[in-house]
Amino acid sequence: LALVLYDFTAEPGNNELSVRAGDTKCVICVCSVSERVDLVDGDKLLFKLQTHFFSSSPLLVFQIGNAGGGGGGDSWSGGGAYVSNTEGWDSRGHQHNQQATPPGEDNDGEWDDDWDDQSLGGYYGNEQAEGEGGVSGRSAHGPSTGEVGPVWLYPTSPLDCVIADPKKESKLYGLKSFIEYQVTPSTTNRPVNHRYKHFDWLYERLLEKFGSLLPIPSLPDKQVTGRFEEDFIRMRMERLQAWMTRMCRHPVVSQSDVFQLFLTYKDEKEWKSGKRKTEKDETVGPMMFSLVEPEAAELDAAQVEQRCEQYSRFTKSMDDGVRELLNVGHTHWKRCTGPLPKEYERIGRAFRNLSTVFSSSKYPGEETLTDALTAAGKTYEEIALIVAQQPQKDLYFLLETNSEYKGLLGCFPEIIAVHKAAVEKVKEADRLVSAGKISSSDKRSMNQRSSCMSYSLQAEMNHFHSNRIYDYNRVMQLYLEQQVTFYQQIADKLRGALSQFTTL
Amino acid sequence: LALVLYDFTAEPGNNELSVRAGDTKCVICVCSVSERVDLVDGDKLLFKLQTHFFSSSPLLVFQIGNAGGGGGGDSWSGGGAYVSNTEGWDSRGHQHNQQATPPGEDNDGEWDDDWDDQSLGGYYGNEQAEGEGGVSGRSAHGPSTGEVGPVWLYPTSPLDCVIADPKKESKLYGLKSFIEYQVTPSTTNRPVNHRYKHFDWLYERLLEKFGSLLPIPSLPDKQVTGRFEEDFIRMRMERLQAWMTRMCRHPVVSQSDVFQLFLTYKDEKEWKSGKRKTEKDETVGPMMFSLVEPEAAELDAAQVEQRCEQYSRFTKSMDDGVRELLNVGHTHWKRCTGPLPKEYERIGRAFRNLSTVFSSSKYPGEETLTDALTAAGKTYEEIALIVAQQPQKDLYFLLETNSEYKGLLGCFPEIIAVHKAAVEKVKEADRLVSAGKISSSDKRSMNQRSSCMSYSLQAEMNHFHSNRIYDYNRVMQLYLEQQVTFYQQIADKLRGALSQFTTL
Repeated sequence: LALVLYDFTAEPGNNELSVRAGDTKCVICVCSVSERVDLVDGDKLLFKLQTHFFSSSPLLVFQIGNAGGGGGGDSWSGGGAYVSNTEGWDSRGHQHNQQATPPGEDNDGEWDDDWDDQSLGGYYGNEQAEGEGGVSGRSAHGPSTGEVGPVWLYPTSPLDCVIADPKKESKLYGLKSFIEYQVTPSTTNRPVNHRYKHFDWLYERLLEKFGSLLPIPSLPDKQVTGRFEEDFIRMRMERLQAWMTRMCRHPVVSQSDVFQLFLTYKDEKEWKSGKRKTEKDETVGPMMFSLVEPEAAELDAAQVEQRCEQYSRFTKSMDDGVRELLNVGHTHWKRCTGPLPKEYERIGRAFRNLSTVFSSSKYPGEETLTDALTAAGKTYEEIALIVAQQPQKDLYFLLETNSEYKGLLGCFPEIIAVHKAAVEKVKEADRLVSAGKISSSDKRSMNQRSSCMSYSLQAEMNHFHSNRIYDYNRVMQLYLEQQVTFYQQIADKLRGALSQFTTL
Repeated sequence: LALVLYDFTAEPGNNELSVRAGDTKCVICVCSVSERVDLVDGDKLLFKLQTHFFSSSPLLVFQIGNAGGGGGGDSWSGGGAYVSNTEGWDSRGHQHNQQATPPGEDNDGEWDDDWDDQSLGGYYGNEQAEGEGGVSGRSAHGPSTGEVGPVWLYPTSPLDCVIADPKKESKLYGLKSFIEYQVTPSTTNRPVNHRYKHFDWLYERLLEKFGSLLPIPSLPDKQVTGRFEEDFIRMRMERLQAWMTRMCRHPVVSQSDVFQLFLTYKDEKEWKSGKRKTEKDETVGPMMFSLVEPEAAELDAAQVEQRCEQYSRFTKSMDDGVRELLNVGHTHWKRCTGPLPKEYERIGRAFRNLSTVFSSSKYPGEETLTDALTAAGKTYEEIALIVAQQPQKDLYFLLETNSEYKGLLGCFPEIIAVHKAAVEKVKEADRLVSAGKISSSDKRSMNQRSSCMSYSLQAEMNHFHSNRIYDYNRVMQLYLEQQVTFYQQIADKLRGALSQFTTL
C-alpha cells in the first residue's frame, strides 16, 4: 500500500518544478534533473548542485568533493551507470577542499549545455505546453520571483526499491528467529535480503554520515513483542518501504556507498566486507562539509542568516501543523474504528429488532415494511463495517505521511544549529583576524566553508520543499478520493435501503 | 417540521389497508373508511366497528352505545357534518347496554351496503390496480390469512388540526405571562386559542374517559424554566402538534365531545360551560365499556386469551425495541452534535493551518497546493456544520416518532390488565353460577361485557398496528431520504475539494 503512495511512474510530477520531459520514472520531480559525477584526480568524486532560476539566470554549480577510492570513471558518464558506480563514492581517502574541476578535465561546460538543453529547456516547454501557469504566473509570488536557489544534482534514472516477501527465517538451528525482507532496487532488479537490524545498521550509518547535513528520519520503531504477527510484519514492511523510498529519493543518500552496498551487494562476503569498510568511514558528520566546495560566489551573510531564520521558522511551524494533524487524525481514527461503527451497528440492530417485533404482530400485509426495515438494519450494519475499515483506506496514508514528515522535521533543528554555529564563527572571524589569532587566509577558508554549508542547507531545503509539495499533493488527493468513495458508497447503500420502502 | 411528518395529503396511504380511493386528505389510512353515526332513541350515539377480512368475509359490526344528550340528528347524515355534530356525543345520559339498532330504525343494512360498495370495493380495486401484491400476496402470511378482526369505524373526512403562531400573552395586567397557540381544525378551518394548560386539561379528560380503553399518550413534558425561549416554544409546539395529530387520527377520541369542544368552541362562554360539563362527565374509565355493545357473536374465550397474550407480548417487545432505538439514537445524537463535528472542524483547521505554513515557505509555485489545501480545510469545516445540523433533520423525527410510540406503548399494560381482569371474572362466572352466587343472566351479561372489551381491544390493536405501519414507513423513509442527502452532500463537497488538487 505504501508503494502506491510513492509510485511516481509515468506521472508528470507535481508543481512547476518538473522532471525533464520524457522521463517516465522519477523519484525527485522537483529539479531539472541532470546527471554528472566527475572523478577528479582519480579519487575525488564530485557532487554538483545547481542554482535554478525561473528567469534565464546562469547555472550556478557547486560541488561536494569526496576523497573517494577508485570508482570506475567510465561508468559515471551518462545513462543509468550513475548508480552502479557509487561504490567509489564513500571510500575513505581524506582529501579535503580540493578544486572540483581538475585541470584538463573540463566536463562542466558540456554538462551545463546538456542540462540547459535537455532539462531546463524541456521543463519550460513542457510546463508551458501543459498550461500550468508557467513562469509568468509565479511572478506575483513575493520578491524572489520564483528563485529557488541551490538544488542538489538529481540522477536522471532515479533509484527506487521494492520491499516485499517477508519470510520468517532462523539460524543457530532454530534457536533464533527473524523476519527477512526481500529488497529489490530498480537499478539492478536483483533482490537482496535484509533483516530489520540491517535496516537499523543502515540508518545508523546514514545518520552518522549525513545527519549534520540532511534529515535522516528514524526507522519504524523497534518492537519486541508480537514481532512475528502478520499485521505487525506487514505494517513494519510498509514503513520500511516508505523509509527506503524516501532515502532512494534523496540524491546524496541514494548515491552513497553505504546505501548502494545495502541495495546491491552480491554475496554475503561483499556485504560483510562492505560493512566493515563502512564502519571505519571517517568522513562522517560535520566532516562531510569539508567535502563541499562551491564554485559559486560566497553568499551574503545577512541574506543567509535571514534564510536560515526562515527555514527554522518554517520547519517549526510545519512541525506544529503536522503534530496537530496527527493528533486529530489519531483521535478521529479511534472514533472511526471504535464507538462510531458500534453505534451504526446498534442502530442497524435496533432497526432489525423492530422488524422482528413487527413481524410478530400477525397483522397482515406488513411484509413490505418489515422487509424494508430489515434491509435498512442490515445496511447500517454494513455501514458500521465500512466506517470501521475506512481509516485504513484513507486516514492511514495521511497519518503515515505526516508521521514521516514529523520524523524529517525533527531532524532540522540540529542541521540548522550546526549551520548557525558555523555562521557565528564566521562573524567572529573579523575580530580574530584583528586580534591576530587567525590569518586572513584562515578567515577566507572559514567563509568558504560556511558558504558551502549554506549552499548545502538551501539545496536540502529545496529538496524538502519539492518533496513536500509532491507528497502532500499526492496524499491529500488519495485521502479525498477515498473519502469521496466512502461517502458515496454509504449514500448509494442508503438509497438502496430507501427504495425498499413503499412510496407513500 | 412535525407537520411534514404527518401531512398525509394526496398520498395513497401506506400498506394495503388504504383509504378509500379518491380521498385526498386522510389521517387514518389503514382501514376502509366509512362514515356513519346513528342516533338511537334520539339520545344514543353508536360507534360502529367492523371486522375486516382480506377474503370476502361478511362485515362484523359492533357498537359503542353512548347515552348521549340531544345532538342534532339531521347533521349526522353524510358528508362532513360528522364532526360538527359531536357536541351531542359526550353528553351525560347513562343508558347502558341498550340495543344498538333500535326498532324501526334499521340503518345498518344500508350502511353495510354503503361501506361495502364504496370503501371495501374501492380499497380492493385500488390495491390491485396499483399492483401492491394484493390479497393473494398475503395468503402466505400465517394461518390467519389476512384477517384483521374488529376495527373502529373511521370517519370519511378525517380530522386534522394545525397548531401554529405561538404568542406570548399576559393577564392580570402583565403579572402572569403564558404562551398561547393557535389551533385550527381542518373541519371548521377556524382557529381557536389554547395555552399549554388547556392541552393538559384535555389530556386529563381524555385519559380519564378513554384511558382504560385506548392509549392516551402523555403530553410533552411540563417545564418551568426556559418556557419562553424560542427553541423551547417551537419544540413544545411541534410535540403538541404531534400529540394532537395522533388524537385527531383516533376515531373514538377525535369524535368525542371533549375533543370537539377543545377544537371548535365558539367563544369563551362556550369553552367555559363546555369545560364544566365535561368535568362532570361520569361516563369515564371502565364505564366506557358499558357503552360498548357488539352486534357480533361472543368471542371464543380461549382465542381471546391467546390474542391478549399476543398483544401483551407484542407491545412489550415493541416497547423494548423502541427504547433501544431511542437509546442508541440519543447516543448518536450526542456524538453527531458534539465530538464528531468538533473533530471534523479540527481536521479542517489542521489542513488550513498546514496551508498557511506552506504558503510561508516562500518556495515558488505551490499556490495550487496551498489553495487546494485551504479549500479542503474549509470543506471539512463545512462538513462539521453539516454533521452537527444533521440530527435535527433526520434523527429528530425518528426519535420523536419513537418517543411517541414509547408513550403509546406505555399505556397498553393497563389496558390489557383491565381486559384480563374482565376475562378472569368471566372464567369465575361458571363457578359462581354453580354456587348460586350469580344468575345465568348475570353470567351472560358478564360474557357480553367481556366480549365487548375484547372487541374493543382488538379494534384498538388494529388501529395501533395500522398507524404503526404508516408511521414507521413514513419516518424510515424520511430518515433514509435525509441520510442519503447528507452523505451525498458530503461526497459532492469532497469531490469539489479533490478537484482543486493538481492531477499528478
